[in-house]
Amino acid sequence: MDYRSSGVDIDRAERAIARVKERIAGTFTGGVVSIPNGFAGAHASPGTDRLLLASIDGVGSKVTVGRTLGRVRGLGVDLVHHCANDLLVHGGRPLFFLDYVGVGRLSESWFEELLEGLTDACRGVGCALLGGETAEMPDTYAPEDFDLVGAIVGEVSRERLVDGTGIAAGHRLLGLPSSGLHTNGYTLARRIVRDGLGGDWDRPVPGSPHTIGDALLEPHASYGAAVLPLVDSGRITGMAHITGGGLGGNLGRLLPEGVSAHVDTTAWSVPPVFRMLMEAGDVSPEEMFRTFNMGTGFVLVVPEANVPDVRASLSASGWPVFGIGDIRAGGHGVVLHGLR
Amino acid sequence: MDYRSSGVDIDRAERAIARVKERIAGTFTGGVVSIPNGFAGAHASPGTDRLLLASIDGVGSKVTVGRTLGRVRGLGVDLVHHCANDLLVHGGRPLFFLDYVGVGRLSESWFEELLEGLTDACRGVGCALLGGETAEMPDTYAPEDFDLVGAIVGEVSRERLVDGTGIAAGHRLLGLPSSGLHTNGYTLARRIVRDGLGGDWDRPVPGSPHTIGDALLEPHASYGAAVLPLVDSGRITGMAHITGGGLGGNLGRLLPEGVSAHVDTTAWSVPPVFRMLMEAGDVSPEEMFRTFNMGTGFVLVVPEANVPDVRASLSASGWPVFGIGDIRAGGHGVVLHGLR
Repeated sequence: MDYRSSGVDIDRAERAIARVKERIAGTFTGGVVSIPNGFAGAHASPGTDRLLLASIDGVGSKVTVGRTLGRVRGLGVDLVHHCANDLLVHGGRPLFFLDYVGVGRLSESWFEELLEGLTDACRGVGCALLGGETAEMPDTYAPEDFDLVGAIVGEVSRERLVDGTGIAAGHRLLGLPSSGLHTNGYTLARRIVRDGLGGDWDRPVPGSPHTIGDALLEPHASYGAAVLPLVDSGRITGMAHITGGGLGGNLGRLLPEGVSAHVDTTAWSVPPVFRMLMEAGDVSPEEMFRTFNMGTGFVLVVPEANVPDVRASLSASGWPVFGIGDIRAGGHGVVLHGLR
Repeated sequence: MDYRSSGVDIDRAERAIARVKERIAGTFTGGVVSIPNGFAGAHASPGTDRLLLASIDGVGSKVTVGRTLGRVRGLGVDLVHHCANDLLVHGGRPLFFLDYVGVGRLSESWFEELLEGLTDACRGVGCALLGGETAEMPDTYAPEDFDLVGAIVGEVSRERLVDGTGIAAGHRLLGLPSSGLHTNGYTLARRIVRDGLGGDWDRPVPGSPHTIGDALLEPHASYGAAVLPLVDSGRITGMAHITGGGLGGNLGRLLPEGVSAHVDTTAWSVPPVFRMLMEAGDVSPEEMFRTFNMGTGFVLVVPEANVPDVRASLSASGWPVFGIGDIRAGGHGVVLHGLR
């Protein structure tokens, strides 16, 4: 199985977006601060030397898993953490959040559970839920079906903006573990559960105390509390949030010309849920690493001299830290070693 | 026919939102500036005496009309203008915009047409399209189906924030015409076309050069170019964007205690498309005014002494202006006179 056969064609979407890039650039006012291939957009904060950072995202078809299993609280957490991590890549501290819920027929109890997760997560990352929209659209969504979208706005001082331009050969890659699939690859994962696991959401994940349903609903991790102090210290040259496209797609986005990132995929243990999906779906390691985070949810690029301090700081925040590779002169993009 | 029987229960949605209001308030940081029942949220802009304003919205089931008739360009315009008008209510000037497209299967030509409208409208209101997300979700949306969400961020100086607190008895209500239904009431409108007009989108609208299909796809008007100069002049005490809930619901949102708004609904001609929907759907005038803007898309509350200047300025921008009523001491909410 692969992602395209599950109904999602990343290449087609990327072609479509490439075709409208020029139109989008045509809207750029003098306030826009370009971060090519950024995880968030940057705009001057009028009257200051600070930057506003903004990002919009959904939780994809993870909503379908939550709806199927009747547990939607975590989806609210997913939405906030996903968006906050996208700002964090550029050093952004969240200010406020806006949510959108499109649904066939609103259920009050379900809505309250979702908002509970959303508001708890907003408090956790320190941003205000400043607004939202809930739209009942019975002709777009089936009665129990919904989509969930969030937009986040944060800020960073100009001198602390992390945009990858300082990345150089010799810098080390430090990985922080994901808590599960986060919010990517769910269309493929659900097909595997349906076709490879007989649709049994209660199937135990071998080598783990969880069922496959629990594992797939585990909320997106939030890295801000551990990483923002390091941004303030100026010890990091680049970061990547490992979302759709995996390590290759996301770590590659911010690399300057003339360097490549080399990742030793044996440097951490791929969590049991990914092993189970890989075997049940007969998915190639290449396709797994292109679709899922495979256990590494966030990557920091750190000059070698700063590695001990950065490691110590992350460890003090309670995170296991994996040295997963380095930046090398020459080549292009991300090279994954030891795939299996 | 009424809105509830068309599948959208505004009361249920409002009850659900009322239940989570306290949770939402629990996320409010020191930066939040409260605008009760505001059309946008306000947040201090760090390091300045300015405010950031933000809003998120969809275009509702107008997307279904665009998809059915194969014309989606205007939906991008709708999304931007709707959001920009929501900021404008509080005096906000747009800075940047973020879009989200959730779709069953992305079509490149369709996507380009949509983004053409979106980017043209962003340029028109002077805001950058700073980011976006396009998600293919084949299990949430039918192949040709989609939802469209936008978030906007703008700014206003603290002293120019328009929040309705200055509204007082004697102030006049000036109405600006809508260009059509804008983006509200489409679930009901589409039922009427299906059940009352035989699903014939080419049916001429009596008294108008347009078909019902054309009329329902007319993009949302944008009031910023005409109204922002008046905000800078400080001549306005309140504004309302007439969206879901109609004149009563939206004009009532910002009224201070102890005053009511009286609207003479005979002060302007209800446009032919609303007359046609009312007759074809056998909808009561009360329900029409609760669901649709009925031809008035934006309302300004203006102290009597400022009325001549404000009228002159709006007229110079090319807008017809209707004196549609006034603010009176006592009573509560919005009273619609002359409904028929």
